[in-house]
Amino acid sequence: MSHHKFLKLQTPDEARDAWLERIESECSAPGPEFVPLAQSLRRVTAAPIAARRSSPAFHGAAMDGFAVLAEKTFTASTRKPLRLEINKDAFRINTGRPMPENTNAVVMIENVNIGDDGRFVTLEQAVFPWQHVRKAGEDMVETEIILAPGTSIGPYEIGALAAAGALEVEVFRQPLVCIIPSGSDLEKLEDCVEADLRSGRKLPEFNSLVFSELIGEAGGKPLVMPIVEDDPQAVAQAIENAAKAGADLIILNAGTSAGSRDFSAEVIDRMGEVTAHGVAMMPGKPTVLGLVPSAGKKIPIIGAPGYPVSAVLSLEKFVVPLLAAWQKRLPPQAETVEVHPCNPMPSKPGMEEHVRVKLGSVNGKTFAIPLPLGAGTVNSLSRADAIITIPAACEGLNADEKVRASLLKPWQQIEGALLAIGSHDNTLDLVDSMLRRKFPRFRLTSAHVGSLGGLLALGRGNCHLAGSHLLDPETGIYNQAAIRTHLKGRPVNLVRLVERKQGLIVAPGNPLGISNFADLARDDVRFINRQKGSGTRMLLDYQLAQAGISPTSIAGYKDEEYTHMTVASAVLSGRANVGMGVRAAANALGLEFIPVGMENYDLVIPGEFMEDERIRALLRVIRSDEFKKAALAMGGYGVENSGEIIWEHGVQQGMSS
Amino acid sequence: MSHHKFLKLQTPDEARDAWLERIESECSAPGPEFVPLAQSLRRVTAAPIAARRSSPAFHGAAMDGFAVLAEKTFTASTRKPLRLEINKDAFRINTGRPMPENTNAVVMIENVNIGDDGRFVTLEQAVFPWQHVRKAGEDMVETEIILAPGTSIGPYEIGALAAAGALEVEVFRQPLVCIIPSGSDLEKLEDCVEADLRSGRKLPEFNSLVFSELIGEAGGKPLVMPIVEDDPQAVAQAIENAAKAGADLIILNAGTSAGSRDFSAEVIDRMGEVTAHGVAMMPGKPTVLGLVPSAGKKIPIIGAPGYPVSAVLSLEKFVVPLLAAWQKRLPPQAETVEVHPCNPMPSKPGMEEHVRVKLGSVNGKTFAIPLPLGAGTVNSLSRADAIITIPAACEGLNADEKVRASLLKPWQQIEGALLAIGSHDNTLDLVDSMLRRKFPRFRLTSAHVGSLGGLLALGRGNCHLAGSHLLDPETGIYNQAAIRTHLKGRPVNLVRLVERKQGLIVAPGNPLGISNFADLARDDVRFINRQKGSGTRMLLDYQLAQAGISPTSIAGYKDEEYTHMTVASAVLSGRANVGMGVRAAANALGLEFIPVGMENYDLVIPGEFMEDERIRALLRVIRSDEFKKAALAMGGYGVENSGEIIWEHGVQQGMSS
Repeated sequence: MSHHKFLKLQTPDEARDAWLERIESECSAPGPEFVPLAQSLRRVTAAPIAARRSSPAFHGAAMDGFAVLAEKTFTASTRKPLRLEINKDAFRINTGRPMPENTNAVVMIENVNIGDDGRFVTLEQAVFPWQHVRKAGEDMVETEIILAPGTSIGPYEIGALAAAGALEVEVFRQPLVCIIPSGSDLEKLEDCVEADLRSGRKLPEFNSLVFSELIGEAGGKPLVMPIVEDDPQAVAQAIENAAKAGADLIILNAGTSAGSRDFSAEVIDRMGEVTAHGVAMMPGKPTVLGLVPSAGKKIPIIGAPGYPVSAVLSLEKFVVPLLAAWQKRLPPQAETVEVHPCNPMPSKPGMEEHVRVKLGSVNGKTFAIPLPLGAGTVNSLSRADAIITIPAACEGLNADEKVRASLLKPWQQIEGALLAIGSHDNTLDLVDSMLRRKFPRFRLTSAHVGSLGGLLALGRGNCHLAGSHLLDPETGIYNQAAIRTHLKGRPVNLVRLVERKQGLIVAPGNPLGISNFADLARDDVRFINRQKGSGTRMLLDYQLAQAGISPTSIAGYKDEEYTHMTVASAVLSGRANVGMGVRAAANALGLEFIPVGMENYDLVIPGEFMEDERIRALLRVIRSDEFKKAALAMGGYGVENSGEIIWEHGVQQGMSS
Repeated sequence: MSHHKFLKLQTPDEARDAWLERIESECSAPGPEFVPLAQSLRRVTAAPIAARRSSPAFHGAAMDGFAVLAEKTFTASTRKPLRLEINKDAFRINTGRPMPENTNAVVMIENVNIGDDGRFVTLEQAVFPWQHVRKAGEDMVETEIILAPGTSIGPYEIGALAAAGALEVEVFRQPLVCIIPSGSDLEKLEDCVEADLRSGRKLPEFNSLVFSELIGEAGGKPLVMPIVEDDPQAVAQAIENAAKAGADLIILNAGTSAGSRDFSAEVIDRMGEVTAHGVAMMPGKPTVLGLVPSAGKKIPIIGAPGYPVSAVLSLEKFVVPLLAAWQKRLPPQAETVEVHPCNPMPSKPGMEEHVRVKLGSVNGKTFAIPLPLGAGTVNSLSRADAIITIPAACEGLNADEKVRASLLKPWQQIEGALLAIGSHDNTLDLVDSMLRRKFPRFRLTSAHVGSLGGLLALGRGNCHLAGSHLLDPETGIYNQAAIRTHLKGRPVNLVRLVERKQGLIVAPGNPLGISNFADLARDDVRFINRQKGSGTRMLLDYQLAQAGISPTSIAGYKDEEYTHMTVASAVLSGRANVGMGVRAAANALGLEFIPVGMENYDLVIPGEFMEDERIRALLRVIRSDEFKKAALAMGGYGVENSGEIIWEHGVQQGMSS
């Protein structure tokens, strides 16, 4: 058993290009097929599509009026109006109808006088041949090429094909992509039993579902095969089954890493050939690329990593370009924008890193905040606004350095978002949901770095607002002292979001009988702390000092989490016996809550943004009864002053306040 | 019968906003529904979606190795290695597996020594608590909001929902959009008989298909109702049927104009209320917006114009925003780019005009060429790269004026396109198809303005190349004299595309017995000409002068078409008896061809572009046997010199040549 399987990491581009070249020369690409027009949406033309008939197919009226032979009208004038007999020399015609025999022009209904008996019309002006006539073939001429090969068919193309009489369309067959989930612990998502998942006896298999949707969007046809055990023979058999099912491409997921049960590369190597094992990208490093033979031909195969984010990025790097190449078109390319990291982004040299970021557009400059890096954090993809690719040769990005990011969300969504950096509170999610429902153009994006971090970010101009609950031990007043210290010369408003109960969060039934801060120092108690700079941490330290308890006497004091919810989760999972946080977090996970006091949670908003339409919308939400009711229902909140401007700093009191 | 129904045109934005406001206050929006996760792609969340379990649900290994209790390892060092008994103090574990009881850290497999008997491991270093452990709730904590309301569900969101255990998702119900095609001449596309279409007895109904696809992409559920006759009572009945079918929105198509059979507005007015009839946009002017009552509620209704382009633009202006509003999200917004019209674009004041354009990116500047304006030209939408909106207050754009265009194709496609402006030849389509197949990044976009127009465009720097076949009557040499005159000081290469037969195109069997230019002046012969500045027109004029025939003696000499194919089409439809053009056009429509001589059709390519990778790819295609064979198969072409550089102007011969 070797634990250094990734001997030579290729760059992802090298690995992909080499694999695609081998596939192009050794594997058969899916050929063309004919599909009915109504089923051709999102397919890609495999050949030039020619018009089967001209459009219009006949000379037709382009206006409502009378069809005439222009040459007969040349003598008409105001002084000498011309009389034409209806149904002999002039024919009533509506737009789009074919021109009668021996006519070649239309007189608009406005320009004729119809005699009272309805038998004659009179013209006071000559008409030119082909006036107001849509000539046969004006739009397209029979045999003319309507769509070039490699055209993606959208609604407009459907219209052009219909007009051209192309009721069957020659498109590329959708490549059949067989997905083999592998892993003895995996259970089909729909068969999962909750208790098995919670204990870790079973892991839900959902990568295949995500893969299927990605493959569908890239023009492939996914087929999910049964889950296979961690056993080389079973995996080999599954690959053979996929080949028999007609796979154009096989995805093996996972078993691609260097663990004792990771033999995807081994099996592919034995059956066919591994062209790359391990690529210099993160996430996505444990990717295997290869070819397996079947019935005299070769089928491309990819071993995708098990962690969802790695797997998705691996598919986007290797599978999407293959599907595009088979359809002779370019892989879709995301729109990119120029962004500036709020903080330095270190990156491992030699590795191409794909960092998921949230974006905020503040005063015309777009700032990027990285989301958690873990490859398992699948919602770091759904939460991300964009991805920054840090090249292998680069050791990272400096704060504020200019870099391009590939958008995952439409730019208009990002433009309409308020970026809040600072403390975390559950009511921020509530505000976001209500904001989106009432003002679909706007949203609230928040990054949780603690109260102090928020004020510093605001000072650097990185965000629109900051959530903060920093107690000044000397005055007992929240936030104002910290703002005076850290936002010198920046006029800001302090807007109350909520008052909230802080307290100790313990397991249901409080089995260790914890009741106050002194209990945290007990030998049988393990604490879970919040990070430095968070308001909760400062409140704790203040209370400990008041009670004369030394932090070093508390087991777990150095064990930090970044949000109320992860503190509560640590208590729920038994990792700690007690943590400090808000009642809403305890309530959410069914934990017990021992109140230690009420605190103010405020939003710090620069004066310059107070008239911004997004901020105005935000304040309308916070001041609404709907918000207040919902916050009260979460428990532990006071909403009496929600939305009130508590204090204006550096505005009325002058810059020195 | 009034012919001035559009008394007061509202601006499209006013009309839309007023309609949407009425709908919001008087109609019921489609509510939420639950769908299985696997069917939730492209749906939009109707509520915040919370995690049903934490992810990971348990503390799990983040690395392959041994699970230990960190506190027991604190004494380990290189000098004093620590021995732990396997399955008592150290447990073999793979990534992702739950941590055994009483362990809280993982030692990587690389960092332990396994004893020979497999009973013990030794560590030379202490490990920290929670090292290489993915803590329960690290990715998401139970009850945490995973997706905000109004989120469009893509593959990433499916992954996040699966991880969160959200197997059913609360999304907005897809609004049911009933489409009523109306028109006595219409026939369902699949029932059409070719002869009826060619004669104009029937018109194929395909707007409903295009609408269905547009509505599906915008999140609606289309339902196409049977075609109704041009009869007010039948239309009213169809509206009632749609309401009974549960329509959230009804689209009536068409009968919205001012013709004698256009009573959509009348019927809607009688049944309910018309909020707008006629809007100040082109195409799309004859749009009707309104509300009809049904079973105590009101249903929005739109009468869309009959011409496909008008209809599509009307739906995009009015229906897509309504569907978005119902799903509480923003209508999709196209990426825009800065472009410069090659020629002036006049626009009717008071009308918002939507001009479909082709784009070419030449030396970093993007030029726009309008496609035919006709509202019936459905392939002007599929051919267009972008749409330029000229505001109502604007009388048009000047040539080269900066304006933003909304992209219909991905920018990378436009960036990879070579823009040819000039003469038309059928082999250009062939080159484009082959280019795309061999080089998916590249394509050839062509605009047909005649040979001379192409040289002038090239001179202005508006395009990459120009197709030209301009005979110099004095020397009998093609193109060189014209280049010397019109491209002074611009080094260009003349590359042979094809030699081609020019001739007279006549009806099958040549019923009038036309055999030479003298026959064009016969009384029983009607000619169809090409436009001034085209090589074919110049060749004709040269030949007529040679033969001593006066153009004024030729009936139809002033009747002009812009391409070989439309000339051939005019002959096929009987509009003319004879025209001049290439054999390929005659062959394509099964017409007879009387050769009058061979001419050279060349590509004029500026020297600066000769090393451009797109031009190199183009030349590779033109020089390929595949191209030459295909061109020969079209008939009337010589390919002996295809791809050869015939002449270099202003490069070797100096600027004065």
